[in-house]
Amino acid sequence: MTKHRITLKDIAEKLGITVTTVSKALRDYPDISEDTKKKVLALANKLNYQPDSQAVALRGKGSKTIGLIIPEIVHYFFSNVIKGIMDYTEANGYRLLITLSSNSLELEKKQVNLLFGTKVDGVLMSLANETKSIKHLEILSEYEIPLVMFDKVSDQFQCNKVTIDDVNGGYVATTHLLRRGCKRIAHIRGPKNPLNSKGRFEGYKKALDEYGVKFDPTLVKECTDVTYEEGYQFGKELMQIPNKPDGIFTVTDQVGVGALNAIKDIGMKVPNEVKIVGFSDSQIAQVSQPALSTIHQPGYEIGETAARLLIEDIELRKKDPYHIFGSKQIILDTHLFRRGSS
Amino acid sequence: MTKHRITLKDIAEKLGITVTTVSKALRDYPDISEDTKKKVLALANKLNYQPDSQAVALRGKGSKTIGLIIPEIVHYFFSNVIKGIMDYTEANGYRLLITLSSNSLELEKKQVNLLFGTKVDGVLMSLANETKSIKHLEILSEYEIPLVMFDKVSDQFQCNKVTIDDVNGGYVATTHLLRRGCKRIAHIRGPKNPLNSKGRFEGYKKALDEYGVKFDPTLVKECTDVTYEEGYQFGKELMQIPNKPDGIFTVTDQVGVGALNAIKDIGMKVPNEVKIVGFSDSQIAQVSQPALSTIHQPGYEIGETAARLLIEDIELRKKDPYHIFGSKQIILDTHLFRRGSS
Repeated sequence: MTKHRITLKDIAEKLGITVTTVSKALRDYPDISEDTKKKVLALANKLNYQPDSQAVALRGKGSKTIGLIIPEIVHYFFSNVIKGIMDYTEANGYRLLITLSSNSLELEKKQVNLLFGTKVDGVLMSLANETKSIKHLEILSEYEIPLVMFDKVSDQFQCNKVTIDDVNGGYVATTHLLRRGCKRIAHIRGPKNPLNSKGRFEGYKKALDEYGVKFDPTLVKECTDVTYEEGYQFGKELMQIPNKPDGIFTVTDQVGVGALNAIKDIGMKVPNEVKIVGFSDSQIAQVSQPALSTIHQPGYEIGETAARLLIEDIELRKKDPYHIFGSKQIILDTHLFRRGSS
Repeated sequence: MTKHRITLKDIAEKLGITVTTVSKALRDYPDISEDTKKKVLALANKLNYQPDSQAVALRGKGSKTIGLIIPEIVHYFFSNVIKGIMDYTEANGYRLLITLSSNSLELEKKQVNLLFGTKVDGVLMSLANETKSIKHLEILSEYEIPLVMFDKVSDQFQCNKVTIDDVNGGYVATTHLLRRGCKRIAHIRGPKNPLNSKGRFEGYKKALDEYGVKFDPTLVKECTDVTYEEGYQFGKELMQIPNKPDGIFTVTDQVGVGALNAIKDIGMKVPNEVKIVGFSDSQIAQVSQPALSTIHQPGYEIGETAARLLIEDIELRKKDPYHIFGSKQIILDTHLFRRGSS
């Protein structure tokens, strides 16, 4: 009779805890209490537990496939993110399955389960605008599938995260306008909720504050859908107020080009009478006349960095079954691309 | 002893042909000879062959997942196609896995195998520019996984196809310029190979011919990368030839807006001195000044139609194991969107 091999399940049953807790305790995860860790380690030693080399080998092979969940695809920024991810995964022998949440929490849940079902080695995701709770991501930690979040991330989930510094981006855009001599700078902002439009608005206020310019709420317009049309409408409205602005910082390039065209259509000159800076370095910022100054958002680099962090976690876990997944936050720099509009 | 159940394999072995051939013969596929069909049917009857109800039931359940392979994602047209596919698949309870070929045949092969390995119920694809032979798609017919091609399709593979009428699109764009009074119409075309740039060029020539305008090869410029920059360069060059054109039809909107901006930059008036029509109804066509007239390419509708045809095949096969996959070609209409540039 061959001796029964001690498994995680044996330890879990003897201690009356879950297999996941045992696994995490052995890997020294921070969300497991010291007390539990001690008990698990003691029993594992007593029973002479050895990691299951077959399971490790099996996991070691992996599916060599990575899953991606993004909120939308009709968006130049996400296209660039995907390109960055794709190039990195391909170069490292991983394949990529892309799914869309269409900014819906319901669909995001489905996509997590779909990727889980296709046995991906890891998941990259940018959260849907709707997503507040991250309960649906627990299946990934339960089964120890590494996750890296980018762009729209959550504080509630412990994993590697890649974002840009929106506050600094808004600050750089606004100080540029101030240095170019603008005295009254308007801001066409995004909706209240998303962290990125909030951050850009904060950066705008911070710059005004630093330059001793009083914040004037009548110079702030808030988009609902963040479209070219809204930019056009608000650009027009801003030029109708008595003490009109001589500079505008907009939450995106779509909105910026909308404002720019509106101002030209009412016969005013850009950049002579009004200077404009957008955000995200979309293609339309390059083809407007004059071309729109913008804050370059490094989509490609975000994708590449997120893919690199994920593949690192996957490969390290292959070599060391006790490897703990990363939980860094990498904040990438934005840069001002100065063009004709300012 | 239970009686051995007659399988496709038994019939195949007895006749010395492949299982696929037997399966296709029983389904009356057109690529199987009448002679083979007769032999297979006769033997199936003699042995009292019954379709394997367990396999049918298993297949009947399916993965409810569809795979998509597209050549590129940084492209407004494909974003719209994906949206059309996504909306249709979601509404019908199917999930979508997206992969990219990045216009490389090598990568396209990998993605076919990846989707095959994830057990999708069917595949939607637009071929990579590089793809000439379709040998790598045979695994799909071998395992009877339905395929629908859209946009960039191949004559060599028998399946449902969804395309637009590029010749007609080029014809409509050019006749519009002729009717607006243009006498010398230039064409900035795409590369020689892809069917769509070929078709648009043909449509251009057809319109000239019909209106009795002599074709002048000096008025045709050929893009390599089909970019804004190439459009700008060729727009400039066309305005430097002695007998300059008074109308330009361009293979895409990127190229069209490039030409438009070049012409404005050298101090000429659009549409007064030169009229321009682009192709594909990209976002930049709406925001240029003047806005660019364009041929609307119904990306959303293409995606929706392709998804519908695929799901029809999947569902019909579930109900009837002898259902033959469709092999229609659906050609969707394009429309002229007339704007300020013409």
